Amino acid sequence: MTDRYAPFRDLARQIGVDAVALVPGPNFARLMRHDFHTSERPLVLMIPAEGPPAAIVPNLELGSWEPLGFEGETFDWRDQTGYADAFAALAAHMPLRSVAVEGQVMRVFVHHALRRAYGDLEIRDAEAAISGLRIAKTADEIAALERAIAISEAALAEVLDSVRVGQTETEIESRLLGALFAHGAQGLAFAPIVAAGDNSARPHAHARPDYRIAAGDALLLDFGARWGGLCADITRTVFVGAPSDEARAVYDTVLRANLAGHAATCPGATAHDIDDAVTGVLEASPFAERIRTKTGHGLGREVHEAPYIMRGNHAVLEPGCVFTNEPGLYLPGGFGVRIEDDILVTETGSRSLTSFPKDLMTVGC
Amino acid sequence: MTDRYAPFRDLARQIGVDAVALVPGPNFARLMRHDFHTSERPLVLMIPAEGPPAAIVPNLELGSWEPLGFEGETFDWRDQTGYADAFAALAAHMPLRSVAVEGQVMRVFVHHALRRAYGDLEIRDAEAAISGLRIAKTADEIAALERAIAISEAALAEVLDSVRVGQTETEIESRLLGALFAHGAQGLAFAPIVAAGDNSARPHAHARPDYRIAAGDALLLDFGARWGGLCADITRTVFVGAPSDEARAVYDTVLRANLAGHAATCPGATAHDIDDAVTGVLEASPFAERIRTKTGHGLGREVHEAPYIMRGNHAVLEPGCVFTNEPGLYLPGGFGVRIEDDILVTETGSRSLTSFPKDLMTVGC
Repeated sequence: MTDRYAPFRDLARQIGVDAVALVPGPNFARLMRHDFHTSERPLVLMIPAEGPPAAIVPNLELGSWEPLGFEGETFDWRDQTGYADAFAALAAHMPLRSVAVEGQVMRVFVHHALRRAYGDLEIRDAEAAISGLRIAKTADEIAALERAIAISEAALAEVLDSVRVGQTETEIESRLLGALFAHGAQGLAFAPIVAAGDNSARPHAHARPDYRIAAGDALLLDFGARWGGLCADITRTVFVGAPSDEARAVYDTVLRANLAGHAATCPGATAHDIDDAVTGVLEASPFAERIRTKTGHGLGREVHEAPYIMRGNHAVLEPGCVFTNEPGLYLPGGFGVRIEDDILVTETGSRSLTSFPKDLMTVGC
Repeated sequence: MTDRYAPFRDLARQIGVDAVALVPGPNFARLMRHDFHTSERPLVLMIPAEGPPAAIVPNLELGSWEPLGFEGETFDWRDQTGYADAFAALAAHMPLRSVAVEGQVMRVFVHHALRRAYGDLEIRDAEAAISGLRIAKTADEIAALERAIAISEAALAEVLDSVRVGQTETEIESRLLGALFAHGAQGLAFAPIVAAGDNSARPHAHARPDYRIAAGDALLLDFGARWGGLCADITRTVFVGAPSDEARAVYDTVLRANLAGHAATCPGATAHDIDDAVTGVLEASPFAERIRTKTGHGLGREVHEAPYIMRGNHAVLEPGCVFTNEPGLYLPGGFGVRIEDDILVTETGSRSLTSFPKDLMTVGC
């Protein structure tokens, strides 16, 4: 029988800690094939380098926990009495001197509860190593990503068809959300960005209820459906009526950078190589001062996950890795352009999971 | 000119720390009137007991940060060089020996970055005190809650009308999501729960794609729209066709507990008093063994926030407080019933913001 905890045990030994602690989130969901709401109630899965795992589970979650076939001891706790006793019972049951945790997922209250129960426990942030186990996607995960992306692209096509001069960003956002769920989204990968005019120059803009899109505006949509626990993430920038010559030149530069990123992607390439290819195009253009971001990030159960596609990250991209290729140029007070695809690294090269056209597109005419 | 940081400065002095650190999330959003995505990029707002605040901000967020009119020093950092220097610069600019943090919001990687920059900084989890500043809702927040609830109730009415025997839980969930956004939701308060039959006995069930609802089933819907940054949270349990006598008796018990909770709510009552009134009804019934949860939780920018409505919490409910009154009874392998309203504490008593009928309802006939 396979030990589903083996990759975590190996990791604990490699980095020299006594155990790995997981909390609800992407690593937990992939391992246990079930996720729990992140809440004020601590739930911790402790996987020691040797021996059976153990868990701290809120009593009200036992109905969802028991069907998971957990192989170790479960210490449950009730709202009425609090969770300190469950942590103390875990510490008595499984003495530890050091533990690796997901620093981007575990919150400070769980960190402090572990410290109180275990005394001078060393709590090491091993986010990169733990989440690194998710980098190569399974066939099931790739199929779910493809479905999330198909839903997202269908919604985008529908929404772009209905854009008209005078609509507000929030009107367009609302139609996008409705279209995503109508096409089968099970959730959102993140709160969509729908930004026109000067708002498109903010990489993480919020839609405005009071700005009406006007001829010549850039209109940037960055969003994604969630399906089967996996996240799509796509950006297209279109223009309302005819763009200026400058806007065309910026768009062309970003598109060339995006294409260079895809061309640079193959097994053996590093995250650095891809960012270098993409950012190199932007830097060589007259718009180099408008660079604000790295090329992209891994994509899977989280919309931002390893590998981060940036210079200095010399991690080799393994087959099964999915990342966003999303160069952009942003002129504060002016406009921004971003073109984002989701790229799968294959055994022999790469394949873009997104297929929405990238030719300069005008809408609302 | 009012100092918007005054409540946090007062809090720091009261609990005896040098500063309060906020990260993106509900407290940050309320203070700055803008939220940022929670991401792998640290953004920290440091408010000292004395003197101007300071912040660490990812460079790519400066376009969203600058319009906020921040009164202090901003230390930005870029993906290419990382954030350690920005934390070190903050530590040099604002020496601190102790800081209060939001333990349910701040993640371990930010905790460790503060520790690395500040040496032996005491990082105190002051979640309850910091988030406690949000307990009394402003008039704007109550109006946003009412809108989120109106959207949620309109969607619920539409979905219940369309329930038929043989539909799956995920089909119903998908229609609920579509209806929420069609009615104007800006997001979801949380992933909806749509659970029938034995799944309704799991307080945090996931909708199943392969279970078709059948005559006699309980059907539990627990969900809420997000609007203007505020969260609705409503549960209704209906029956597919005629319920059994046992199901009627359970429903009646939960409804009496829900009504007792509302009746016990007035300024001066404590969270303990309300849970005691509600749980007392459940305990006095023949179904006491089916109790799994406390009565409820505060509701606002987070779907679970203070005050937690549970015995032992002797916090007095102040006017402006909004909480969920959600008694339930759950028989694993059998069925569950929960009836949840959102209650506003007023100067003179209380008012339910939810108004969807609670009489036993049958659907799908």
